[in-house]
Amino acid sequence: MPETRNAVVLLSGGLDSTTVLAIARSEGLRINAITFSYGQRHSGEVEAARRIAAANRVARHEIVRIDLRAFGGSALTADIAVPKNRELGAASDNSGIPITYVPARNTIFLSYALGLAEVTGSDQIFIGVNALDYSGYPDCRPGFIEAFQRLANLATRASVETGTRLRIRAPLIDLSKSEIIRLGGRLGVDFSLTTSCYDPAEDGSACGECDACQLRLKGFAAAGLTDPIRYLRQPA
Amino acid sequence: MPETRNAVVLLSGGLDSTTVLAIARSEGLRINAITFSYGQRHSGEVEAARRIAAANRVARHEIVRIDLRAFGGSALTADIAVPKNRELGAASDNSGIPITYVPARNTIFLSYALGLAEVTGSDQIFIGVNALDYSGYPDCRPGFIEAFQRLANLATRASVETGTRLRIRAPLIDLSKSEIIRLGGRLGVDFSLTTSCYDPAEDGSACGECDACQLRLKGFAAAGLTDPIRYLRQPA
Repeated sequence: MPETRNAVVLLSGGLDSTTVLAIARSEGLRINAITFSYGQRHSGEVEAARRIAAANRVARHEIVRIDLRAFGGSALTADIAVPKNRELGAASDNSGIPITYVPARNTIFLSYALGLAEVTGSDQIFIGVNALDYSGYPDCRPGFIEAFQRLANLATRASVETGTRLRIRAPLIDLSKSEIIRLGGRLGVDFSLTTSCYDPAEDGSACGECDACQLRLKGFAAAGLTDPIRYLRQPA
Repeated sequence: MPETRNAVVLLSGGLDSTTVLAIARSEGLRINAITFSYGQRHSGEVEAARRIAAANRVARHEIVRIDLRAFGGSALTADIAVPKNRELGAASDNSGIPITYVPARNTIFLSYALGLAEVTGSDQIFIGVNALDYSGYPDCRPGFIEAFQRLANLATRASVETGTRLRIRAPLIDLSKSEIIRLGGRLGVDFSLTTSCYDPAEDGSACGECDACQLRLKGFAAAGLTDPIRYLRQPA
């Protein structure tokens, strides 16, 4: 029997990364999930990630606490109001970059994933970035992912000792939200475990109004599926 | 008057990064220092970094607590004995990579520095890596630094909005320890504030025996200078 290959999956608790986890599982990979707790308002994401990791019986799940608040500058980590009921994509400053952008976030996340890849002998890292719906985020673009892969292959023991190549896989990068939801559905993702809302109620219900909720709801509608999570106000 | 340019300096509390800080200051840059507290045994490094940042009146000093122990695999973070009295460079496993190597460490450090560069408007990041004495560390090599610079220029707002280039500067990369010490001496570095020992005594005295102490002591001897820090046993 061939040896099971290890992979690292960045797991946020959202539906994109949960779909990515399902893709990695469908390839028979041994999953080492990594989740970041980074002072975001929606700490419910970390709890969702725990449930998803458990439901998928991953081999290892690391939850890494990091503090991005030192860097400020984002509605997800600082005291800036989360935008509501704007036209999708309009929640940005004048630059076209959303105010929910966190400086260097994906670079930091991938760097930790690289460390975990190294100690688990993984030759691939899966990340659920998406260039369509998050085109304003510099670190969600294909060129960024390629540059990180190049860096990773100069940074590790394995690259030096054995010439092992490490791949950064971003299988959702060109998909729309509805395509991601259809793909997740085909792979058996339990969307009821996932969370997307930037500003959930105390009981965990999604607000239904923030950019993330709107994007999610439109995605389910376009996919012809029903979103199983609870919303504070049932969307029209 | 031209506007003062901002720079980020990775400051560990050792003599290399303190010399790098002096280089950045000599160029008239506004310094934003960043220090990592990462479960290393030698937390005295963080205290040294505080003293050095204060003595140099940096504009900002961020101390970021990160947990690399989750990744294990290094004598600096895990329960592996720190090697003593070996021939320099011999403290490695069979691969030539020292056992004090921490997976993905410099990738993670530079990623945080990138976040700080972004929020401070810095167009350069200084790092005290050295390819001569640390040739066994994959992430201390020129190719790694160049690859990170390329990544950084795809990862930030500034790169997207204004085409601002960010430089990763590693001014010590080709210097020997004695050359670094001579350079630091010329720039007025107060070496008494710096620490290098992997295994200091409770009163902060350096052991004089670990690889880092031996490298430091040989560097001072070759530079014809006296190391002002205290050693547990005065070296011969």
